Amino acid sequence: MGGDRAPQVVIEGADRIATNNLHIHFLLFGDSKKILPIIHHCRYLKGRYTLTHTDEFISADEKPSIALRRGANSSMRLAVDAVKEGKADVVISAGNTGALMAIAKIVLRPLPSIDRPAIVTSIPNKKLKGTVFLDMGANVECSAEILFQFAVMGRAFARTALKIDNPVIGVLNVGSEELKGHDDVRNVASMLKNSDLKNDFYGYVEGDDIAKGTVDVVVTDGFTGNITLKAIEGTAKLISGFLKEAFTDSIWSKIAYLLASTALGKKVKTMDPRLHNGAMLVGLNGVVVKSHGSTDALGFENAIKVAISLVENRINDKIIHELKSAAESIKTATEQNSGEQKL
Amino acid sequence: MGGDRAPQVVIEGADRIATNNLHIHFLLFGDSKKILPIIHHCRYLKGRYTLTHTDEFISADEKPSIALRRGANSSMRLAVDAVKEGKADVVISAGNTGALMAIAKIVLRPLPSIDRPAIVTSIPNKKLKGTVFLDMGANVECSAEILFQFAVMGRAFARTALKIDNPVIGVLNVGSEELKGHDDVRNVASMLKNSDLKNDFYGYVEGDDIAKGTVDVVVTDGFTGNITLKAIEGTAKLISGFLKEAFTDSIWSKIAYLLASTALGKKVKTMDPRLHNGAMLVGLNGVVVKSHGSTDALGFENAIKVAISLVENRINDKIIHELKSAAESIKTATEQNSGEQKL
Repeated sequence: MGGDRAPQVVIEGADRIATNNLHIHFLLFGDSKKILPIIHHCRYLKGRYTLTHTDEFISADEKPSIALRRGANSSMRLAVDAVKEGKADVVISAGNTGALMAIAKIVLRPLPSIDRPAIVTSIPNKKLKGTVFLDMGANVECSAEILFQFAVMGRAFARTALKIDNPVIGVLNVGSEELKGHDDVRNVASMLKNSDLKNDFYGYVEGDDIAKGTVDVVVTDGFTGNITLKAIEGTAKLISGFLKEAFTDSIWSKIAYLLASTALGKKVKTMDPRLHNGAMLVGLNGVVVKSHGSTDALGFENAIKVAISLVENRINDKIIHELKSAAESIKTATEQNSGEQKL
Repeated sequence: MGGDRAPQVVIEGADRIATNNLHIHFLLFGDSKKILPIIHHCRYLKGRYTLTHTDEFISADEKPSIALRRGANSSMRLAVDAVKEGKADVVISAGNTGALMAIAKIVLRPLPSIDRPAIVTSIPNKKLKGTVFLDMGANVECSAEILFQFAVMGRAFARTALKIDNPVIGVLNVGSEELKGHDDVRNVASMLKNSDLKNDFYGYVEGDDIAKGTVDVVVTDGFTGNITLKAIEGTAKLISGFLKEAFTDSIWSKIAYLLASTALGKKVKTMDPRLHNGAMLVGLNGVVVKSHGSTDALGFENAIKVAISLVENRINDKIIHELKSAAESIKTATEQNSGEQKL
């Protein structure tokens, strides 16, 4: 029931997935009076879903704390409960991000090795597969240890959701010099260099490296991450707005649009936010995927694809395993380091 | 001597200014062997400049600390000295930003009321005049008091460089709710609400508000500011690269470009980074303007225009005056506040 055009785009997105993925069954949670008439028009979803009716839902502007207290029978809560109870492998929502994170933390709990779950997504870049970026805004202040966990989780997301075999990790900073940035940023860089992620660690990257695709995974705190991501979205919207105006400026520019549309279409596709839709609430006992609230059926379909890939590739097992071996290598490196200093 | 195409674009930019501004005299500092042949081709600069020869210059990758120690006879240092000695009203450089800030701090010293000078610029938005944005990266960590000073300096920059009569100020944050963000961000918001800037304070803004032009002045720390600004630049470059490829994809798209170029040209002009060139190192006893290192003569001309406007509108007098009256109103508000709490 969450998102600007729910439940329409949610159901239509599921129907698109149902076309090809015969092994997928959908659990739907929400207002059956609204959902059933939409399913009536869906060709592939019939017989492939179980609908749990509820009148309650969490609105877009509801505070997470209030959503937690009074939302026990909301569609979002019931959907997360289904993952907890093992009825669903993954939950996908286009609703209120803060409420989804709050509910997921309480119901599913963080993974044993994770202090703070984060939100991870991919951003269009010069390359084919996008830049994995986290934290998108779940954690305003982050210690070096937390940023390190983000690096491990981001790498696992790049491997499973984006099929990048050997993802290279960068830490977002103001410059490439060793001494720039604040303590947590410098400390996570030194932790990464001393861990068994060292061969996949590029070093510091700057804001423009996200679009360049300099690395596969960019790690930052949720304050910087949220602002950066929204600044990127704002810039892309500003330019596409200018282009639309330019192409409708006169009859000549309208003809120009027709002539250029094929070539433009190819490029626009790379940048299409719908094809990058599907952020993961990562670091939880269970897989939770967040769709952009303003997406359409194609975008929601992509979020479901991301969700399927994360589950089928057992992302959480990978995160637990990698954090465990990384923790050991950091411990060894720290001991060696202090041993050397004593000599 | 600083920047990718120096001294060529610097001299040509000055020549463009000399065309119309008959009251401006230029002090040039650098290698006369390189500068004189360029001036030879300039129509308007002849008789309007004084050249001080020096072989030394500060390179783009020189560390600020080293530039300070060994750069006493560098073109950058001599130019800043000229402001200190009252020979020049303003210094403009396309060189190493870190070195320029370090030299300016030592030679000119911060304004009496300023703890940390910042770097301020304007970013293209939906409106005509751009969003004033600071700090671009001079100060990685900033207390609420420092962010408050940035707000005052940003407002003065908006008035004098961009001719915005009543600039509205926003504080960059992850959300618009009262309790979001970290302590310094919340504290500067409360300081602004209690000061005589309260009528010009919009509240929190998010990353996409920069491109929307929701407010005239966006205040943030240098870590977030530098990363955000570079992410915006990276996104703009990525999209313009895609467009160039699309428009050279086939003969049809090349024809399309010709048909659309007038309308596109109008829009591209709004986004043209050259017309937003000219950042100020603000909060110093003296006016220091930084041009982008990769700009051309048109861009450098714009940086000089910004510099002239800042000097002619006495920006530093305004900053000193506004900080003084703001400090008084904050003091009064704090006293009233603690008085009320006692009752």
